[in-house]
Amino acid sequence: MQEFMKVHKARVEEELRRFFAEKKESVEHPLFRDAVEVIEEYTLRGGKRIRAILMILGYRLYGGEGDEIMKAAAALELVQSYFLIHDDIMDESDLRRGKATIHRIYEARARGKVRNPGRFGENSAIIAGDLANIYAIQLFQSSDFPHERKSKALEELLRIMEYTGYGQLIDVYSAIMDEFTERDLLTLHEYKTANYTIYGPLALGAILAGGDPEVFKDFAIPIGIAFQLQDDILGLFGTEEKIGKPVTSDLAEGKKTLLIIKALENASGEEKEVINKALGNPEVTLEELEKVREIVRRTGSLDYSRSLAEKLVNDGKRHLEGIKFPRDEYRKILMDLADYMIRRTK
Amino acid sequence: MQEFMKVHKARVEEELRRFFAEKKESVEHPLFRDAVEVIEEYTLRGGKRIRAILMILGYRLYGGEGDEIMKAAAALELVQSYFLIHDDIMDESDLRRGKATIHRIYEARARGKVRNPGRFGENSAIIAGDLANIYAIQLFQSSDFPHERKSKALEELLRIMEYTGYGQLIDVYSAIMDEFTERDLLTLHEYKTANYTIYGPLALGAILAGGDPEVFKDFAIPIGIAFQLQDDILGLFGTEEKIGKPVTSDLAEGKKTLLIIKALENASGEEKEVINKALGNPEVTLEELEKVREIVRRTGSLDYSRSLAEKLVNDGKRHLEGIKFPRDEYRKILMDLADYMIRRTK
Repeated sequence: MQEFMKVHKARVEEELRRFFAEKKESVEHPLFRDAVEVIEEYTLRGGKRIRAILMILGYRLYGGEGDEIMKAAAALELVQSYFLIHDDIMDESDLRRGKATIHRIYEARARGKVRNPGRFGENSAIIAGDLANIYAIQLFQSSDFPHERKSKALEELLRIMEYTGYGQLIDVYSAIMDEFTERDLLTLHEYKTANYTIYGPLALGAILAGGDPEVFKDFAIPIGIAFQLQDDILGLFGTEEKIGKPVTSDLAEGKKTLLIIKALENASGEEKEVINKALGNPEVTLEELEKVREIVRRTGSLDYSRSLAEKLVNDGKRHLEGIKFPRDEYRKILMDLADYMIRRTK
Repeated sequence: MQEFMKVHKARVEEELRRFFAEKKESVEHPLFRDAVEVIEEYTLRGGKRIRAILMILGYRLYGGEGDEIMKAAAALELVQSYFLIHDDIMDESDLRRGKATIHRIYEARARGKVRNPGRFGENSAIIAGDLANIYAIQLFQSSDFPHERKSKALEELLRIMEYTGYGQLIDVYSAIMDEFTERDLLTLHEYKTANYTIYGPLALGAILAGGDPEVFKDFAIPIGIAFQLQDDILGLFGTEEKIGKPVTSDLAEGKKTLLIIKALENASGEEKEVINKALGNPEVTLEELEKVREIVRRTGSLDYSRSLAEKLVNDGKRHLEGIKFPRDEYRKILMDLADYMIRRTK
């Protein structure tokens, strides 16, 4: 699995570099070339290329051969850039993978030159995200597959992007919903993570190989939701070293995770107050975080999230075990990859 | 021409309504349905549907028959919603076609519920714009044309969107460029207006009818640039009633129009100061506006813009006269439409 990931990560990045080189060639104005370079640098900063690799796996499992899949898979990494660039704006993030986010890059260029450099930065980054979106579909379209398959795959790609948009919307919207329930949250995880990161890529690979995408659903959706649940556990209980951001981040952002939702359901009046005071408070302290952690433990909410995640992983894996693929030898890699993703967040 | 516009505006809007009705059917969560409705209302608020109509004209000129073109043409109006939703955020506009912009609609919903309702509004609107973008390509893809033509047309649609993004970028960027020249400005108008509003739609229609899109270039690009130049003249010299926004808007926004660029080239030191003080000043007064107008007149900059626009219109029209189309009877409508667009801004 490690080897498969390493080899294909490199291949996908090679495609990305080729795409950007051609794009730079094709634009005339230095400002446009600069925009391409900004998006290129952001895209190639790193990342595990999980989505691209899952797409390749979905393709190989159904007997898909050859290298044309690399282009289509690389397109998913441009979709990812598009989402992340806009996401960074929404979260007002300064850093992405250890370097300045796109809106901050542009903001820095405008400092001292306009009344509102922040506005300038966000505006340029909205456009950069839009461009990455268009590049993604261009790269996808440039891959050479039989017309019908490609057209079906494009439809699926657009559906994935649409659903991810809905997931993003419910995420933003959770801040003002009077009642944000466990069901809403699982819908969010299904749309924003499971659909986008796991099911969608596998489905695209299957379609391009002429296989049945639906087969992956009962594996990918539970695994994807479990992945997000564990990511949220790590977000509240992890160390700064492990999660790569301040341990108070999720609380400060006001993230309504299942941990928080379930804790609020079973907390005392006083405990509820503690949580609500900490949630969405940019100044939340380590002491308050520790109190919230205690409440989440005491109310059984941590156990609840953990058991649900475990159940989902087992469901998903059991489903995959029951299926026979044309190239079944790739199934082990997919299983290992699922384990790897889940383990990573533990 | 009026009749052609009226009939096809209605047909295109019918397609849009059908698309949104199906989209609402297809989404489960009430929040997602709400998002579809917000985008629908925004899209159907009005607009002349110039781009859709030009696409239909390009199609008919090349002998394209039937109604399938309506879907593809309606898709351009969703592209327009996508651009406008993001544009409204960038310009911090409160109103679009007399009603609240999307970020303001969402902002109003969040008031009193979150620390920063403005942020919430913009975040939701970034997503809404992204969704409109995806819807546009979905609707375009759902039209039934021979595979090869449709795939070529999609490529062209993506190119148009890409170039419009570059145009938008140079527009935003003009605020911090040390030197923003006449050439940069004409590039902006070519990418953001001529390509997007006139050439692109005609080219798409031609491609879908199996015709040659290039033929429209020497007509559409000059006409499009002229259209924008005259729009800028109206923006500085028009009345509030005629331009539908405060007469000081363009100055306050800091718009570096050809009028401003040429005036600065030929202005005295004192005059330059007047212009630079007014440009980008949100508090600019009517008196300052009047002074800027005088300088633009005195330096010959107004005449320069006017003559250039006139020359471009004549060039464009002359080019179209030299071409014979398979269904040449539609050429008169196209000519009239060009006249109409130019006249509208006078």
